[in-house]
Formats: sequence, structure tokens, C-alpha cells
Amino acid sequence: MKYMYQKIKELSHSYYYDTVKIRRDLHKYAERGWLETRTACLIATQLEELGYEVLVGEEIMKKEARMGLPPETVLHLNYRRAQKENANPKYLEKVKNGMTAVAGVLKNGEGPTIALRFDIDALGLIEETSQHHYPFQQRFSSCHIGAMHACGHDGHTAIGLTTARILMELKDKLHGTLKIIFQPAEEGVRGAKCICESGFLDDVDYILAAHIMPQEHRKYDLYLGMDDSFATTKLDVTYHGISTHAAESPQFGKNALLSAANCILNLHSIPRNSDGCTRVNVGTVHAGTSRNVVPETAKLEIEVRGVTSELNRYMEIYARDIIKGSALMHDTVVEIEEMGKAYALKCDKSLMDKIRSICEEYMPDLKLSKRDLSPLGGSDDYSYMMERVQSHGGVATYMKFLTPMTSSPHNDSFDFDEKVLEKGPRIFASLVYNIMQ
Amino acid sequence: MKYMYQKIKELSHSYYYDTVKIRRDLHKYAERGWLETRTACLIATQLEELGYEVLVGEEIMKKEARMGLPPETVLHLNYRRAQKENANPKYLEKVKNGMTAVAGVLKNGEGPTIALRFDIDALGLIEETSQHHYPFQQRFSSCHIGAMHACGHDGHTAIGLTTARILMELKDKLHGTLKIIFQPAEEGVRGAKCICESGFLDDVDYILAAHIMPQEHRKYDLYLGMDDSFATTKLDVTYHGISTHAAESPQFGKNALLSAANCILNLHSIPRNSDGCTRVNVGTVHAGTSRNVVPETAKLEIEVRGVTSELNRYMEIYARDIIKGSALMHDTVVEIEEMGKAYALKCDKSLMDKIRSICEEYMPDLKLSKRDLSPLGGSDDYSYMMERVQSHGGVATYMKFLTPMTSSPHNDSFDFDEKVLEKGPRIFASLVYNIMQ
Amino acid sequence: MKYMYQKIKELSHSYYYDTVKIRRDLHKYAERGWLETRTACLIATQLEELGYEVLVGEEIMKKEARMGLPPETVLHLNYRRAQKENANPKYLEKVKNGMTAVAGVLKNGEGPTIALRFDIDALGLIEETSQHHYPFQQRFSSCHIGAMHACGHDGHTAIGLTTARILMELKDKLHGTLKIIFQPAEEGVRGAKCICESGFLDDVDYILAAHIMPQEHRKYDLYLGMDDSFATTKLDVTYHGISTHAAESPQFGKNALLSAANCILNLHSIPRNSDGCTRVNVGTVHAGTSRNVVPETAKLEIEVRGVTSELNRYMEIYARDIIKGSALMHDTVVEIEEMGKAYALKCDKSLMDKIRSICEEYMPDLKLSKRDLSPLGGSDDYSYMMERVQSHGGVATYMKFLTPMTSSPHNDSFDFDEKVLEKGPRIFASLVYNIMQ
Amino acid sequence: MKYMYQKIKELSHSYYYDTVKIRRDLHKYAERGWLETRTACLIATQLEELGYEVLVGEEIMKKEARMGLPPETVLHLNYRRAQKENANPKYLEKVKNGMTAVAGVLKNGEGPTIALRFDIDALGLIEETSQHHYPFQQRFSSCHIGAMHACGHDGHTAIGLTTARILMELKDKLHGTLKIIFQPAEEGVRGAKCICESGFLDDVDYILAAHIMPQEHRKYDLYLGMDDSFATTKLDVTYHGISTHAAESPQFGKNALLSAANCILNLHSIPRNSDGCTRVNVGTVHAGTSRNVVPETAKLEIEVRGVTSELNRYMEIYARDIIKGSALMHDTVVEIEEMGKAYALKCDKSLMDKIRSICEEYMPDLKLSKRDLSPLGGSDDYSYMMERVQSHGGVATYMKFLTPMTSSPHNDSFDFDEKVLEKGPRIFASLVYNIMQ
Repeated sequence: MKYMYQKIKELSHSYYYDTVKIRRDLHKYAERGWLETRTACLIATQLEELGYEVLVGEEIMKKEARMGLPPETVLHLNYRRAQKENANPKYLEKVKNGMTAVAGVLKNGEGPTIALRFDIDALGLIEETSQHHYPFQQRFSSCHIGAMHACGHDGHTAIGLTTARILMELKDKLHGTLKIIFQPAEEGVRGAKCICESGFLDDVDYILAAHIMPQEHRKYDLYLGMDDSFATTKLDVTYHGISTHAAESPQFGKNALLSAANCILNLHSIPRNSDGCTRVNVGTVHAGTSRNVVPETAKLEIEVRGVTSELNRYMEIYARDIIKGSALMHDTVVEIEEMGKAYALKCDKSLMDKIRSICEEYMPDLKLSKRDLSPLGGSDDYSYMMERVQSHGGVATYMKFLTPMTSSPHNDSFDFDEKVLEKGPRIFASLVYNIMQ
Repeated sequence: MKYMYQKIKELSHSYYYDTVKIRRDLHKYAERGWLETRTACLIATQLEELGYEVLVGEEIMKKEARMGLPPETVLHLNYRRAQKENANPKYLEKVKNGMTAVAGVLKNGEGPTIALRFDIDALGLIEETSQHHYPFQQRFSSCHIGAMHACGHDGHTAIGLTTARILMELKDKLHGTLKIIFQPAEEGVRGAKCICESGFLDDVDYILAAHIMPQEHRKYDLYLGMDDSFATTKLDVTYHGISTHAAESPQFGKNALLSAANCILNLHSIPRNSDGCTRVNVGTVHAGTSRNVVPETAKLEIEVRGVTSELNRYMEIYARDIIKGSALMHDTVVEIEEMGKAYALKCDKSLMDKIRSICEEYMPDLKLSKRDLSPLGGSDDYSYMMERVQSHGGVATYMKFLTPMTSSPHNDSFDFDEKVLEKGPRIFASLVYNIMQ
Repeated sequence: MKYMYQKIKELSHSYYYDTVKIRRDLHKYAERGWLETRTACLIATQLEELGYEVLVGEEIMKKEARMGLPPETVLHLNYRRAQKENANPKYLEKVKNGMTAVAGVLKNGEGPTIALRFDIDALGLIEETSQHHYPFQQRFSSCHIGAMHACGHDGHTAIGLTTARILMELKDKLHGTLKIIFQPAEEGVRGAKCICESGFLDDVDYILAAHIMPQEHRKYDLYLGMDDSFATTKLDVTYHGISTHAAESPQFGKNALLSAANCILNLHSIPRNSDGCTRVNVGTVHAGTSRNVVPETAKLEIEVRGVTSELNRYMEIYARDIIKGSALMHDTVVEIEEMGKAYALKCDKSLMDKIRSICEEYMPDLKLSKRDLSPLGGSDDYSYMMERVQSHGGVATYMKFLTPMTSSPHNDSFDFDEKVLEKGPRIFASLVYNIMQ
Repeated sequence: MKYMYQKIKELSHSYYYDTVKIRRDLHKYAERGWLETRTACLIATQLEELGYEVLVGEEIMKKEARMGLPPETVLHLNYRRAQKENANPKYLEKVKNGMTAVAGVLKNGEGPTIALRFDIDALGLIEETSQHHYPFQQRFSSCHIGAMHACGHDGHTAIGLTTARILMELKDKLHGTLKIIFQPAEEGVRGAKCICESGFLDDVDYILAAHIMPQEHRKYDLYLGMDDSFATTKLDVTYHGISTHAAESPQFGKNALLSAANCILNLHSIPRNSDGCTRVNVGTVHAGTSRNVVPETAKLEIEVRGVTSELNRYMEIYARDIIKGSALMHDTVVEIEEMGKAYALKCDKSLMDKIRSICEEYMPDLKLSKRDLSPLGGSDDYSYMMERVQSHGGVATYMKFLTPMTSSPHNDSFDFDEKVLEKGPRIFASLVYNIMQ
């Protein structure tokens, strides 16, 4: 049996250059959330070639559960671009208009159902153009101005595809069902929900994912789980009033901006909670058209957070009261759109223990952290999938794969050491093999 | 016919000392709104002695339409005091507990129905105690600490009773119905509504009232009407939340004070109205019990105004939205109680013309103002009665009787020249005689 | 003498087609405030050709007193465009970068100094493109997308140039000094101040201007003056804070948006003023960059108004306290830029009487309004010039020239009956001739 | 040496009934903060009788550093009451007017200086009057209506006096200086500062105190220290504006309530801090005098807190900006008075270790908690004294003495099991003896 883990290690190594190649291609053709059209076609095509049953778009997404979609014109332009960039037409029609989730499924008789999740979207940044920036120097920096893989999802996707490749080679040893999920729109915590609501995870016993993160002093390769994340809800709030000339007849207006100002002030005044940390922010406001006209519309981008899902719920419920009360006050109409949602991460101890023992026994060269958990700090909508799996008795964890980085994520000069692209498929494949053997 | 006006003038003169005596007695036993118990008993007794049909309390008031009542204990203590001060027991039981309106009615066959209105309540002031203050020097200053006739209603009531006395002497010459009304609780514009809602004014063709006002340079004796008043609504608003220890568990509270703070700020931000002047004020706020406890209750005294009844309605509707929206925002419960209401004054031109011609023909010694109207500035709930009479086709006006004063009204050293107590009954009686003859 | 007025009438008539031509040219090459570069060059060239002493740019403007300038890049692009459109290079260098005021001066010995003012800027509208829109149909609609003469300033300028032409023909009959001023940036009340502060009006005895306005039922041709305008101050307010990640370290931010929200709410709560109408509006707000970042900057466009200059000052002083207090509250830095200013109009009765008698005697075919004054409703910074002239004893008025219009001003389908282009020069020239003869 | 600890134990036992008697006397004559006049005289008298050097009032307090004093009339009435209740005149004159701190000092040659601190004030509660309430049943419930020992300070004081008594018996064995401090006005964290600022603690090497707290399941007798307290600042804020009639001339007012409303809302919007918990509360607001008058004055009771002194400072600095900005906004004048202050508790590990070893060796019958620290939850101004002693290199701790209670503290039916009155003096005396021997 040890032999199999050795084989997996060797496959990871021999596929390393292909993995790097995939990563760099994805990096070059970076696509933002719900716009991963070329990306999704490429993933689907590869999974198909590997022999997986391929599910895309509506087959694993509940269309109306998607959050924070770009405008239709942007979706359309994106489709055109993917066409030009030779996206596989077989999948293009299915994934266009923001239906960009892809999964490869392998069923092999009785056994556990295990899901792996990889996120595929890029960020809205203009990538650094300097010879010091390795992707620029090596000519794989983003050719899509305004989209950049600055959070490592290009790496995640490449790891996912090589994991799929390795596992297909071990096919005969695997018993049960394997679902390798490529999720769109993680940035803004928008994409996980629609996959959950499609029911695709409802038979899953184990779900695993990993995020590449900065390695300090080459200390550890791996954390078994994460905590200290924030559950969060992202809301777009638009107050609709009635404009009027501010000097001639102010009384005929309904001032959307007065509603917005109340909303802003009071959101910040939601009482602190002794059960744990909470957060609130109104990140942007755009209101009105002209100095001498009572603003007809005010649009706000809001987020609340809590270190537990309960705390986030406390914030969200209170925030919605404030949002609505502010409308009532000045007789405006308010529209609230949920643009993103994530739960707090709760990694299962039993699963982390299992992974620890697998690693210790079969991958003793990996440097495991002593503590199971490492803080995430922010929010990740993979939590949505974890919660779904856990709610019917499955187990879940979210690992950290550590690798040197040039800067912290979400930075226009971000890059990571590609060595993690060898380590990643090896870990995933080993764990899946252990569970499904 | 001129003879009759001469007779009225002589009667006013010969009753002058009695009128002064009544005024001083009322001044001494000043009673605040809804507490005019001794006052009402005295009025009722005198009207009965004069031969009027006397109606009190529920006979001319709709109990539940009274606004801004004092607490029950205060009403009870007031009853006890009136007992001790020998209020006529026949009427005391009827007027106790804030049922202090009185009317004297005289029916004499066919003819118009004419109503006169006199207000009878004092203000919440502690009267000046100095030899320079005439009522104190002459020993008729208020013996009810905290109540003072500083707006001349003692004079109004005395004028009303002497008018009643004169008109009873002319009884045979009068045709139609005369209703002499003594209204409680004008201060705070609280008392008129309940008389209107009893239906007592629904057959009235003419309604007249007057307010004594400061005379400048002995210029005029009389204005025929008033304008430039504010329609107004007085609201008591109480936010009920849930208290909690502010450090241990702020999240368990519902902060009544946060609702109140929003209410205050936003009431002041109601848009200006190009149709005319509006006003808003939050006069008092009392909230919370202790520094380290989230406030459970916040109580606000609010008023809105507009120079027309429509503008006041605009303010009131908007204010109520704000009041409710502020509750919704912080999940508190709000209680809104209407404590007073007045319309804007609209004096009938036809009635003022009639009065002008009567004065010019039969009382040429009176100095009439050239303009019909003089500004009121504030609010008076006699407007409620005017509106009721006008709504079924009757006519109304609100005169000013001018007389020298020591200070402006609502001042603890207020006093007026009692000569107006001779002029007042003469004018009222002459006008009624002219209309009912 | 009557002969001269007849001659003026005839000249106005014979120059009418030229006037129309100028107006249509200006309409086609509409330029917004501070960008009237081609316009100014055209005016200067014509005045020079007529024989006037021509003053432009710094000769009659105090550079740093200009308010509400566009960004430098816009000024630069505008210069380039004017070059391409063959603006007279002699003047182009002087008027570029927002130095677009022009004046024609005629000095003729002893006598009064009289100024005429014409405003020359267009509005930020995209002109209607429909066959129903006469300028489009006749092919003189704006070729500068986003700039449109929708307030008649093209007509004003054309009237000014024809008035200059007529008066030059009467040169020998005129005694004293004539200053014909073409003012930039009236929209937003930005341009008058810098001309005043240059001192150019400090010897002016009479100043006249007119605005074309909708004529109802062809009733009147002319109002002698205007009132009921609002004094106003336009402020751009920018709060500068410090951004920070809203979840990780909210305490390191300085939230510009919290300052802005307080500013908005409290500006609307400035107390009403019993001396007259006041107004306040926050017309636009733009704040923040991203949902999860504490906003670093918040920019507001604000205006206050009052029906007298004193009331506007009350509002402005109070507003500035609020703007600064809101910064102090959240430790942000605030920048306040004055973008426009106008006083309330006070037309001189003596001048209006003079104009009435001139019109009645020498232009009896003009239909004069019975009342001198007609309400302006909004604000105009010609008030700034009036105040300057009146402050040293001169007299001023602001007439209305009435003509049928297709819509109210500031509308993308605005157009006016060009007949007013004949009437306008006639009136101005007649008045100037009468005063300077 | 063990013998001495045995002796201390026996003395505590034999003085137990006296200790109870003192406690019940203090309970009966409960006095609130700065009003502990009779209490202070009683303490001083007893310390004098025991042989201590007695310091009171200005000898150990910096007068102007006292915070949150009651009004002068209350201080005066309190003096009169203490007179009637036979307070020792020798001390009465020194402690009157809120100079109620007392200390007993014992100097015995070279050695460490050790301070003990006991708080002596009662709370503003009306004590339960029911047979179920032991103090009422035993007739020692408070005879001072509105003052009640509901936080155990009566017990603390009794423990302090008995500790003093025992230690005086061991006088010859003690080397160094002993300062037994009885501190007024702990409730509202007002009294410690003035003692610190007098310099009385500046030579102290060890400072000890204890609070009696509810014992659960008779589990432990003692915690060695406390943490999880809030540093806090209590502020009274008064906005002074200018009143005006709200309808006639709102513009002449300066609305203190508008400043207050902004202050309230914005205090609650101080950003959360990722370094730890913070709190803010506006506990009470009282503003204005009359519905139709713009409020001249608004008074707020405010507190901020943080789990570290730094976090509290962050809150206080921010709060002061908001308080001042709110005044600037509406041109009111603000007065900020510091009514109380406490730091976060930092108990010295070395001292707790020492106490643990003393207890384990010499008082093995005491049930010590396993963890050193137990959370305080609220705030205590003993932290002020700890910080003072620690700032010059001394060590400090704040123990919990656990005993069964009928309810949580600050409750009108609060009572505690008096057995703690035997344990308390024993522990204090043993620790002092160990250190000073």
C-alpha cells in the first residue's frame, strides 16, 4: 500500500511541468468571477479527455442562486472574447452568461463519496509590468487588462487538473464516487451557494479543499485546517427616491441620499456583541446626478461579518432593519441584493486527525504544522460547501498549502513559488486514494 | 336702536368693578389646563344664577378626544384642592378629572346660532413676588404655586361672564340661540378638539373670540381678525427598547436612545417646503437610567408647525414616517401620542366687514385698526372651533383686544391694564345684539 | 431725438439675419463654462472689427477668483479643439485655460459709465436629435457632444454683439464710457466674481443685463427687473481619511464616509429661518473604492441658498460649521472648495422707472409688463456684478426679454423663437443711447 | 513559623462575631460614594483604637483629583446626617464634603512597604423589604433609603478592620511599613485616582486587595488574581446652546439637542478594533425644558471601555473627537467632565505564584483554584492603584474570595454568606505576615 503513495508522488513529479504549463496559461488568460468562460471550457475539455464524466453550468448550478453577477453587456463581451480565444464550442454554449462551474465525476461502485473543490476566478487588478515581476518577465502575465490571478486560483485550478489526472490513473483502486469541482466567483464569496443549492453536494461524505498561502521561513508545508475566518454577507443596497429641483420645490422630492446617510451612520452603530468579533463596512456610495437636484438614487456596497455564522446573522438581521428603517424614514423605496455570502469555517477534527495520520505515515517528508488550524483572517465561500456537507453528516476541512510568495495576495505584484504545484496534487491524490481505496 | 348700544356701553361700565373682582379671583386661584376645576364650578354657578341653561363636562365634551391630560394623581389632588376651596359640589362631580368645559346657553326662538368662546386655563409658571408686580402688591397673585394666569385667560373669562350678564339683560331683544363657551386647556392647544367632537358647534352660524394683546402707543383698541398663525401638531413620542448591561452583553439590548437620536436628527432634516414656512422642534428628551445600562426608554416632546394646515399636515406625515422608521432601525417599539393640535387661523372677511361697520356706526369711540388682520405668531386651538363652524358654512373670526401690558405674555411678571375688562364685554355684547336682534 | 430711436429700431431689423447667423454658429459650437475658448475668440475678433477696444482674459479677470474650473486636461483638450476650429490665434493664447471673459470698451469723453453684460456659456447636455427639434432640423445643433446652449446664452451673446454694432454706429452721439462685457461660466454661478474682483466694474454707474425667458400667451415683451432669486453658494467638499481593510483592522482607518454621512444629515437639519426661505442640497456623493475597504475619500457637491444674501450667509456659515465638525468627529481632513456664488437680485427702482419711461415714450410698440418685477426662481451670478456696482452708488437691473420657447430652459429639446434677437439689440441700444446722449 | 499561621487562623475565628457585627452595622448605615462620612469616622476611630497612625481626607487624597462628586447640597445633608448618627467629631470635620478616604499606617523599621485596599461605598438601590431577605429579617437592612451595600463592600471593610486588628497583634514580627487603605467611591470607578495622585502609594512594593464573589458548588475558596476586566472612562458631557422660541425665530437658537443626537449616534459608530473588545454606551440623556423651545442644554452620561487600557484609550480619544465635533457642528459649547476611570487589571504572575505557595504550605485547608486568574467582567478602579504601584516596580494582585450569595451583585436582594468574613482576614493577615516577617 505504501507503494501507491510512492507512485502518486512520482506522478506528481512527472506531471509537474504540465501543471506549471496549465497554471501559466490560466494566469495569462485570467478571467474574473462569473466570466471564467475560457477557463471553464478548458477545464471541461481536459476532464473529458481524462475520461471523467463532465458536468457544467446548469447541471451543477442553480441559476438563480448565483450572486453578484456582472451586467449583461459584460457577460456578452466575455462570451465574444472566449470565442475569439478558441474556447471549446461544445462547452462554451453551456457555460456562457455566467454558468461557469465545472465538475468531473468518477463513479466506481460502492464506497464513500468524496468531493474536491478548486476555485478558478481572478481578481480585478491590473498586473504589474516590470522585469522584477516573474510572470511579466516570463511572458505569462495577464493579457486581459483588469483581470489578474493575484490570489493563486490559477495554481488551485492547475493542481485540481493534475490531481484529476493522477486519480484517473489509479481508477481501479478507487471505490465510491469522486467529484472534482471547479468553482467560479470565489472572490466576493459569490459562487459556492449556487452549486450547493443545485444539490450536487448532498451525497458527499468528505469534502476537501486547499488554499496556497505564504510560507514563512520554509517552516511548514501544510496546515490541516483553518479557523478564524469571518462569516460574511455582502449586500448591494439601492435607495430609490424622487428627484426634484432642490430650490424650487424641495418638498416634491424623496431624498434617496438622506436614507443612505442614515443607513451608513446606523450600520456602524450596530451594538458590539460580547459573543465575538463583528464587522460592518459601507465600502462605496454613489448618489445623485447634479448639485441642485435632490438625489433620486443612492447605491451602497455593504458588508457585514462575524467570527461565527451566528454573529454574522446577528449583524445581517440588524443591518436589514436599519436599511429598511432608513427607507421608511424618508419614504424612499429600497432594493437589497445579496451579492455574496460565506459562513465561518468549521473544520472537522476527525478529518484533520485522519489527514495528519495519513501524512505522517505515507508522506513523512512533508513538514506538517504542529497545530491543526491556522487563521484564515478573511472570508471564503467554500465555507458554504463545508456547511452543506456537514449538515447531512459529512466531514470537511480546508487546508493551507504553504509556499514562498513575492507579496501578500490581492496585490498587483503577487506571485508564488510554483513548487507547490507538485506538492498539491500529491497531497490531494494521496488523501483521496486513502479514503476511497 | 342706537340706544341699545349706548345701554350696553353703560352696563359694561357699571359692571366694571365686578368684572375686575372676578378676574382677580380667577387670577388668585389660577388653574392649569384640565385642572380648571374650581374655575369651572365658579363659571357654571354664575351662569346658572344669571339664568342660562348650564352645560358642563360630558354634556359638551367628547371625553376621549381630550389631548395632553395630566396624570391621574394630579387630577385627583386637584379635585381635593377644589373641594377645600369650596367649589360648588353640584358641578364639582361633573367637571372633575379634567372635564372642565362649561357653556351657558340661551335659546330664544328663531334666529341665528351664535357662539362666543373664552379660554380659562393658566400657565405653568411661578408668579413674580415683588412689590413692582401689581397682582402681588394688591394681593391677588396666584396662591397655587406653579400655576399663573400669564396669558390673560383670567381676563378672558371675566369678560365672558360679564358679557353673559349684559346679554341676559337684553334677552328679550335677542332672537336665535346664544352659546357662551368656556374652554379648558388652550395652552398646548389641547382643549378645543374635544368640544368640537362633541358636536356642540355643529349648528353654529357665527363664532367669535378675542385675545387680549399688548397695545402699542395706545394706537388701536381692536383688530378684527388674526392671521399668520401656525397650524401645529404636538406629539409625545416614547421609544421602548430593552435594557441590558452595556459592557457584558450589549447585543441583548434594544437601544431606545439610538432610535431617539435618529428621530431627532431626521426630524430636523425634513425638507423645506416652497409653499410656505414650516417648523419642527424636539423640545425635551429624557432617556435611560444609568450610565452603564443600554437605555430602555426614551421620551421626546415634539411639535411640528406650518403656516397653513396643509403645510402642517406635510410636516406631521413626514415626521410620523421618521418616528416609525427610527423605531424599525433599532427594533424598538414606538408609542406616539397626540398631545395637541391647532389649525391655521382663517378669519372670514365677510364677518370682519360686518364687525367693522358695526363698530364704526355704533361704537365710534373705539379706535379700529386700518388693516383687518394682525399676526398671531404662534398657534391657538380656537382655530379648531373656527374650522368646525366654517366647515358647515358658518363664519368665524378671532379678534385682538389691545391693552397696555407690563411684559409680553408667558412671562412671570405679566400683567395687563384692566381697562380692557370694560371694553371687552361691551364689544362682545354689541356684536351679539346686532346679529341676534 | 425720437428719430434716433427709430434708427436704432431699423438697424436692429436690418442686422437681424446676421444676429441669427451668429446665434446659430454659437449654438453649433456650444462650449461649457470656462471652456468658451472659440466663443471668446469669435467675440473678441468681432468687437475688434467693430472698432472697440478689446480686453480679454487677465485684462478683466482676476485669475485666482475663478470658481469651479474644469480639470487641466479638459482645459487643454479644449484649447486643442479651439485651435482646430480656427479660433483667432491673436486671442486664443490670452483666453486659453479658462480665461474666457471678453469686453469691448468705447470711451467718448465725459459722461456716465455704462456696462452691459452678456453670458456666453452652454450647459452639459446632449442635444436632442430629432426632426422635431428645430436646431437639429436646420443643422445648427451642437457638434460638441455634451455641450448645448439650452439656456439661451447663444442668443444673449448674439444680442450683445449686434448691440455693440448698432452702438458703434451711434458713436458720435454717445458721451461717457461703454463697457460691453461677455461673461463666461454663468451656469453654476462661477464666472462673475473674477470679473468683479478685477476691478473692471468699479467705475460703472449703470449696469444692465437681460435673460430671455418663456413668453406666455404673447402677453408681454419685457419685464424691467427680476426678484425672488436665491442668493447661493456652491461648495465642493472632499473628506480625506485613511483606508484600511474593513475586517482585518478597522481601527487603522479614518472613515471619510462617516464624516460625509454626518455632513449630509446635519446640513439638512440647519434650522429654518423666520426671516425668509432657505435651501440646502447635497446633490451628489461619491465615496469609496471597494466593499471591503474603509472609504478613504468622500466627495460631495453641496449648495445652500437664501432669498436674501443675508439668509444665504446664515446657511453658508452654518454649513461650514457642519462640514468641519463632521471631519473633526471622525478625524478626517476636509477640503472645501467654493465652486460658485451668487447674491440675491436687487434691481433699482429708479433705473426700472427710467427704463419704463424710455420704453413708453420711444418704444410704444413694446408690450411692457404692469409690474416692474418678475420672479427669477433660481440664482444668477450677474447679481455679483449688480452688487459691485450698487456698492459704490451705481444702479443696476436685470430685465427679462420674453419670447416663445419649445420647452423650459435646461432641457435637451430647448429652443426659442429667434424674433427676440431683433428686439434685444433694439432695447439695449435704445437704453444706452438714452443714458449716454 | 507554621505556628504563626495557626495563630492567625485562630484570631480570625475568635474575632469572627465582631467582624460580623461591624459588617452588619455598616450594612445598616450604608453610604454611597463620597458620602461614606459616618463609615470613614467609624473606620478611623477603630484604627486609632487599635494603635495605627490614622490618615484621613487630604492627608491621603488629592482633593481636585476626585471624580463624579455629588452636588454640594447632598454633601451638606450627608454631613448633617453623620452628625446626628454620632460620627466621631474628631474625624468628621476632616472627612466631610467627600474627603472620605482613611488609612491606618504601621511602620516597623526596615522592610518592604505593603498596602492593602478595601472599598467602603454602597450602591444607589432601595433594599428589598421581605422576610426572605436575611438582612431585613435580621433587622440590619439599610436605614438609609436609596443606599444599599449590594456589592459586598460592607464585608470588605469589616475584613479590613479585622485584618488590621490581627496584624496589630503580630506587630513585633512585622518589618517594614503596612498601609491599610479604605477607599471611597469605587462604584463608578471614581475614588482610587485621588489617592494615587496624593502620592500615598509611591513607596509601595506590594499591593493586595480582594473582592467577594459568588462561589459555585462550594468549589473554590480563592482565586489568586483577576483578568478580563474592562478599562473604562466615564464622562459626563453637557452641551450648552442658546434657547429660542422654536416657531418664532428658530435661527436665533443654538440647538444643544442636535449636538447631543449627533454625539449619541456617532459614539456608537466608533469602528470596532481588531485588537480586542471595546464598548461604548450613552446611558442617560436629559435635554430641554419645553416642547416649543429649542433646547438650551443637553446632558449625557457616557462610558467607554476596552479590554486593555490601550483599547480604552482608543475609545476615549475617538469619543472626545466625536463629542467636540458634535459641538462644532451646531455651534454649541461642550463641557466634558471625567466622572470615573479604571485601567484593565494586570495581576503580577510572580505575586500570584508567591500567594499560591503560601496558601499551599500554610493554609492547606483552603481550596485554591487551579487557574490563577478568574474574569472580572466589569471594571474596578483598584486597577488605578495597581498601575501606580507597578509603574515604579511594585507588584500587585486582585484576589477573589468566593462565598455563596443569594443573587448576583448590584441586585436589591443581594446578600452573602458571612463565613467569608472569617476567611478574609486570615488570608490577608497570613500574606502580610509572610511578606513582612
